[in-house]
Formats: sequence, C-alpha cells, structure tokens
Amino acid sequence: MAGQDIEKLVKLVSKLPSLGTRSARRIVLNLLKKRENLFLPLIEAMQNVANNVKTCEICGNYDTCSPCSICASELRENGTICVVQDVADLWAMERVSFFKGKYHVLGGILSALDGVTPEDLNIEPLLERIGKENVKEVILALPATVDGQITAHYLVSRLKDFEVKVSTLAQGIPMGAELDYMDEGTLQLALNSRKAL
Amino acid sequence: MAGQDIEKLVKLVSKLPSLGTRSARRIVLNLLKKRENLFLPLIEAMQNVANNVKTCEICGNYDTCSPCSICASELRENGTICVVQDVADLWAMERVSFFKGKYHVLGGILSALDGVTPEDLNIEPLLERIGKENVKEVILALPATVDGQITAHYLVSRLKDFEVKVSTLAQGIPMGAELDYMDEGTLQLALNSRKAL
Repeated sequence: MAGQDIEKLVKLVSKLPSLGTRSARRIVLNLLKKRENLFLPLIEAMQNVANNVKTCEICGNYDTCSPCSICASELRENGTICVVQDVADLWAMERVSFFKGKYHVLGGILSALDGVTPEDLNIEPLLERIGKENVKEVILALPATVDGQITAHYLVSRLKDFEVKVSTLAQGIPMGAELDYMDEGTLQLALNSRKAL
Repeated sequence: MAGQDIEKLVKLVSKLPSLGTRSARRIVLNLLKKRENLFLPLIEAMQNVANNVKTCEICGNYDTCSPCSICASELRENGTICVVQDVADLWAMERVSFFKGKYHVLGGILSALDGVTPEDLNIEPLLERIGKENVKEVILALPATVDGQITAHYLVSRLKDFEVKVSTLAQGIPMGAELDYMDEGTLQLALNSRKAL
C-alpha cells in the first residue's frame, strides 16, 4: 500500500550491491524525509554522472572526459602501466597517491567458473598501448586469488614478445597485522619471500 | 582521481542509511556498469517519487495522492485507528494485510534523550480525527522500548477524555522462537501475561 512509484523505487534500490529489500525501504523512507537536503541533490548528482561520465578510450577508467584525466595528465609517467581488474582497484591505488604511472583496466579477470575468457577482457588494447606509448614496465596489480594468479600468468605469456619488464605487487603480511591472526598460506608465502636485512 | 561528479555522487550515496564510503563507491561503480538496466531506470524512478509522492494530510502516510489510498479507501473500516511511529511501521503492518482499519503516523516517539516532546509529534491531528471520524478504538502499535511505552502512556492520558477504547499490541514470545534464546525481560513479560487455555 505504498504507492506503485515507491514500490518500484524500492525494488530498484534493492538491486544495488550490498542492499536488500529491507535496507532499500529504509533508504527510500529516508530520502522522502530528507527531500531537500538529500533526495533532490542525489537525483541531480546521479543525472550529472549519467550524462557526463564516460569510459576512457585508452585505459578504461571512468571520467567526465575521454581520455581520462590520468591518461591526459602530463604529470604522469608514460613508461609504466599498472594493470588492474576494475575501476574500483584503480581508485584504491589512486587513494594511496604513490603510483605515478598510468593504468589499464582489464574489466575483470579470467575465471573458468564464471566463463570469463581472454576475449572478454580488455587485453588486446593493453598490448597495443605497449608499443604505442613506449612502455618500459607493466605492473600487475591483480587480486591475490587463484583467478588473479591465472590472469597474471596469462598476461605474462602474452607480454613475453614485448621488450617490457613485468612485475606484480608484493605479497606478504599486511602492515599492522599480528602473526597470530594471519592465515597459513600468507605466513608460508611471507616466509618464502623473506627479505634480507 | 575519479572525476568531481563521481566523487560528489559517492559522497551523497554514503549519507544513505546503512551505507558507508566503501559501499557507496561499489554502488556507484555498479550503476556505471549497468547504465541502461539500472542507472537510468533508477534515476527515473527517483524522479517519479520525488515529483509525485506526498505526505497524506490525514494520516501522514506517503502516497501519490492525498488523502492516501488507505484513508480514501471505502474498504477500510473507519472506526479503528492504528497509531504507528513511522511510515516504515505502517508498511510493516500492511505487509501482514490483516488490519482493516486506518492508520495514524506519529512521526516519531517521545524521547528525553533526543529531546522529542509531544509538540514534535503528530498528536493533535490524531485527537481531532477521533471526533471527526467517529473512532471507536485506537490501537497503539508503538515500539516495545522504554520510549515507546512512555509515548503509549502519554497517548493514553490524552485519549482519556474521548469515548474511545485504547489498546496496544500484545507482547510476548515471537512465533517460532526458542525459549532458550529469549531475553529474561520477554520471558517475564510472557509469564505475567499468560493466557488461560
């Protein structure tokens, strides 16, 4: 009895990641309560993003311009490309603001279970960029999972023909972690890759 | 480096209940990925709700019309009003589709901590309705908390002058519950209010 418009909105909101019907209802009621301060500004912000944001034709990042502000920036080094699974990972890297090179968004990783093959990923454009942009190093910043490793291996095999250094993010114990709480796989890996002091 | 439009949207989404910055980012990326199937329909649904949904002048429910479809319905009994804290609770009651009377949304409950006084609540219009709609019974469906009980007591004192039956939802052990898992307050209450078979 909430009116068809409301029910439709609740249904759409509940399709968003990490939300269910109950939280969708709470969100819609909250929006109706804060109409001026939240609901209308949110609609406007969504329209702006929907109208203005595009996928960067070079790296696959989202931005209001294409090439995106990272690809177009003269402050970023051209010789290094950091390969990430997703734009979310690109954002995570950018929040550190330590990496000064450019990015390439694969749009996923290989997965036998989900039926993701190399053709589904943004791999060919990466290979094209290597010659075109005079790339010296490719950093694979892929998830530390089995699928992530398989994707990394595949990319290494494809990059063999190019004169380019390929590296991957270091694996080990995260900063601030207690050994007691680490899983055995990580401990073994950290021990194997121990560094001389 | 996500573009100002995106950052603004992430910030607004993170203000929604039960969401933080991380889930807001995931939601925005998800919207950008599903532009046609989710993002654009969601914007349209939000606009429809923002444009069409109003607060019912009689009971405080949200609907596209005022009086709302419940207040305007001839199938609902006029003699009984169920008083709820919030529209969310009204929806919860309607999902059971057992109650056939009408509603009154208080818009909150009395709270010394949050500084909610009777003047902040939708109480005077409730008293007006009792004479106007020839109400025979008021059912208080308020939260089973201390503040809920204080509000119920206050409403009972205000309703004393009217010739109207006042009742409250039964408290006890919820259906399907194991005694072992119930808190002591509920058990004591259920024992005190035991029913003869």
